[in-house]
Amino acid sequence: MVVKVYGPDYACPKRVIVCLIEKEIEFETVHVDGFKGEHKEPEYLKLQPFGLLPVIQDGDYILYESRAILRYYAEKYKNQGTDLYGKTIEERGVVEQWLEVEAHNFNPPVYNLVINILVYPLAGLPSDPKVIEESKEKLGKVLDIYEERLSKTKYLAGDFFSLADLSHLPFGHYLLNSMGIENLVRERKHVSAWWDDISNRPSWKKVLELYKFPM
Amino acid sequence: MVVKVYGPDYACPKRVIVCLIEKEIEFETVHVDGFKGEHKEPEYLKLQPFGLLPVIQDGDYILYESRAILRYYAEKYKNQGTDLYGKTIEERGVVEQWLEVEAHNFNPPVYNLVINILVYPLAGLPSDPKVIEESKEKLGKVLDIYEERLSKTKYLAGDFFSLADLSHLPFGHYLLNSMGIENLVRERKHVSAWWDDISNRPSWKKVLELYKFPM
Repeated sequence: MVVKVYGPDYACPKRVIVCLIEKEIEFETVHVDGFKGEHKEPEYLKLQPFGLLPVIQDGDYILYESRAILRYYAEKYKNQGTDLYGKTIEERGVVEQWLEVEAHNFNPPVYNLVINILVYPLAGLPSDPKVIEESKEKLGKVLDIYEERLSKTKYLAGDFFSLADLSHLPFGHYLLNSMGIENLVRERKHVSAWWDDISNRPSWKKVLELYKFPM
Repeated sequence: MVVKVYGPDYACPKRVIVCLIEKEIEFETVHVDGFKGEHKEPEYLKLQPFGLLPVIQDGDYILYESRAILRYYAEKYKNQGTDLYGKTIEERGVVEQWLEVEAHNFNPPVYNLVINILVYPLAGLPSDPKVIEESKEKLGKVLDIYEERLSKTKYLAGDFFSLADLSHLPFGHYLLNSMGIENLVRERKHVSAWWDDISNRPSWKKVLELYKFPM
């Protein structure tokens, strides 16, 4: 059964797609135009009642929340493609820890920066310089902890690439390429090397080749 | 090995403790006084570099982020105590989905309400009535979707109690008991019945008996 992924132009669906490529799972994508509000239309809300991207359809099975989808496929196809959960339950626990850190510590300031530096200007809305400064400061402190961690292990959860690293790719891409603040990463030697490593994986290059970011 | 849980008076560590009780895992707690800033002291930061609660120590194994700890123990002791992940990989995927919904849709508005209605007044800081109103409105829309879901299944992930329900307990407790806004739940028949069901589990009653909320 081919997995259908909705909204491939946006960041959170790309998190799912790069995982499907790593796991060698066949998929197809369904375009959803967020700027036209297609994710708030009744047909879409039947699949994802919160009106958020992505959602996947795998036969009769429907699942949303990008990081839940990552976990589902990493577990279901544990022995196919890249093992993204580590070898032991203890390694998997550490993968879960850093996946939560990505969601709760890394993503919120980067998201605020994306909204204020990229999205608002595009929509003709004013950016909030105070939010931008505070988010840069918060992110800097988070990346200091990443720097310390990545000075000891090659990847976040240990010496193996995992869901925890993979989950940083879409918003990391904005951070490094579109906002003029890549110094936040480049000033930190180990974070910078880690980013070059994970963003040069064939899976992520394939995602960027197949699906453009809308900005 | 007895699991050590840091910071049992606070909400996120309670999420871990109720899980340990459900899984029949022996634990002890270490008091951390957040009002004195003990979670920002160097000894604590060695365990949890972001200075957040909780962290657990299980022999040499140290893990933080409450929902990562839930997942670790639900997996490690799959066949001990309450099964919190469902029977199949597909059920587990839906547990993951609603655990993410709790983290990203339910928790943020409730957290803002707790901060503005309970914490700021206690700290002598001004609350923001606009944030309170916006958070109530956001939460109401989220609970409308819960109401729809819970009209079809007894619990969030299906007809079995899971990590997804359990994870709502600590902030749900604030919402229902300390803020004068329990109508948000009580006006929704199925959400209200669901709350009564999960909050009357012996595990959660035990948590409330053992560890007071600081407010």
